[in-house]
Amino acid sequence: MIYADWASTAMPLPEVIDAMLRCLREDWGNPSSRQHTFGRRALAALDTARAQVAALLNAHPDEVVFTSGATEALNLAILGVAERSLATRPRFLAPATEHPAVLEPLARVALAGGEVTVLPVDAHGRVDAQHVDCDTRTALVAAMLVNNETGVQHDLPALAARAHDHGALLLCDATQAMGKLAVDVGALSADLLALTAHKFGGPMGVGALWLRRGLAISPQLHGGGQERGIRAGTPNLPGIVGFGVAAELARTQQAERHAHLAALTAQLEAGVRTALPGVIVQGADALRAPGIS
Amino acid sequence: MIYADWASTAMPLPEVIDAMLRCLREDWGNPSSRQHTFGRRALAALDTARAQVAALLNAHPDEVVFTSGATEALNLAILGVAERSLATRPRFLAPATEHPAVLEPLARVALAGGEVTVLPVDAHGRVDAQHVDCDTRTALVAAMLVNNETGVQHDLPALAARAHDHGALLLCDATQAMGKLAVDVGALSADLLALTAHKFGGPMGVGALWLRRGLAISPQLHGGGQERGIRAGTPNLPGIVGFGVAAELARTQQAERHAHLAALTAQLEAGVRTALPGVIVQGADALRAPGIS
Repeated sequence: MIYADWASTAMPLPEVIDAMLRCLREDWGNPSSRQHTFGRRALAALDTARAQVAALLNAHPDEVVFTSGATEALNLAILGVAERSLATRPRFLAPATEHPAVLEPLARVALAGGEVTVLPVDAHGRVDAQHVDCDTRTALVAAMLVNNETGVQHDLPALAARAHDHGALLLCDATQAMGKLAVDVGALSADLLALTAHKFGGPMGVGALWLRRGLAISPQLHGGGQERGIRAGTPNLPGIVGFGVAAELARTQQAERHAHLAALTAQLEAGVRTALPGVIVQGADALRAPGIS
Repeated sequence: MIYADWASTAMPLPEVIDAMLRCLREDWGNPSSRQHTFGRRALAALDTARAQVAALLNAHPDEVVFTSGATEALNLAILGVAERSLATRPRFLAPATEHPAVLEPLARVALAGGEVTVLPVDAHGRVDAQHVDCDTRTALVAAMLVNNETGVQHDLPALAARAHDHGALLLCDATQAMGKLAVDVGALSADLLALTAHKFGGPMGVGALWLRRGLAISPQLHGGGQERGIRAGTPNLPGIVGFGVAAELARTQQAERHAHLAALTAQLEAGVRTALPGVIVQGADALRAPGIS
């Protein structure tokens, strides 16, 4: 059996499962219970995972907000920016090829009075940053780093430069990039970045929103003040611990994984091209991440 | 060591951990990938857990929407009702003693133009249903079944009758009741009910909103259409599987657990009263769930 649906979900890594098992058996306290050892051990586990995820992104731990996945992170980013900016910057821009977890929150923003512009893409599914109609009424440009169906990469630094020229923010959906490319929030010039654990060996049900230091957004889940007040609710500690280990492994094994995926992708596409003459590999001439075809 | 912080979080049960481990190792497919065996096995695991949680509540499986916990379930219920009703029924009522995961979303409703009335409570922390100022402009009455600090129970059927007399809905926060009391959505006459796994032996990071059949609310997470379109995002399958097993055990062991907790609570309170004459047990004369003092 060859499993070929990794862009949907990846097999959890054995090291991830072991760490989650240890958390469930030993560190099952509530990180908010700082009055006792169980709670403090849980908080230490949460802090370790936050540092591991931050290291994968070359970010500061206090910039990482844990969520239930990329969908929640993207909703939080878009609705959390819109709530603060709609009066002064009503415009939101995104390529037509974004995931529903970006396009549907944008539709909500439009219902709330925002102006959403869907950016056209070329034959490879790319947006030309020079033609992005950004202005001083624009709050946010949202774009995925790696397309989930073709692997084609957007030029995030160029989109970020275009956004920043007009004082707008750049949101990067890095869901499909993690574990395939080195993702450095500084090199991308992003202001917000969403990711999820289950695409690169972590468990389903946990993700994060990275927010550049100093950037304020409106929370979308209200309650106990967890995650610096940006995301209320008892955190999914076993999932977060697994996410941290997956991030650590993705960081330390990045070069090998990229090479391995590139070899497998080349082999697959060469085989398909040979077996099915005339087949077209979408985005073959564009910059693509390995592992998606 | 005596762990006395169960209302914050409970130790995951061994059966729960075993089921999660099996899910992580064997059923790690994405339930939305219905084209292949891995996805279909994951969907079967999701369906099993949904049936287990529904059985605990004496509800239908298609009434259960999985969330990342009670905080998300309560936010979804309150904001999801408000979005649809604010124009015609702007009033929302809740006792002063509700959890921040109810009071803070209500504060958001007030910001959006709703009229939120905080109901006063008596010395035991109870609301008198006869004096709840419900009317035909009221959308929702929200109340916890078991108080998280005293264990005192609200008379949910009486509050529900009061709400229904005026065409309003009743939301029950059952977070602290699960695993202590039998919770039957029909007997409570609730329209919506929130719960979380980690208070009764399931893992942190997973919960559910039960919605009576036919009741429509506005989703608060937008994206891939999961959970019948009410809650987008890849579900936390290992957590949900653990939640299902915890629900199954809570249902089958309900009578023994209640008796055991009642004995422990009585022993603790008798000991404290003896050791510290003059101590007051809050709500001692009210109907209380065992296990919280």
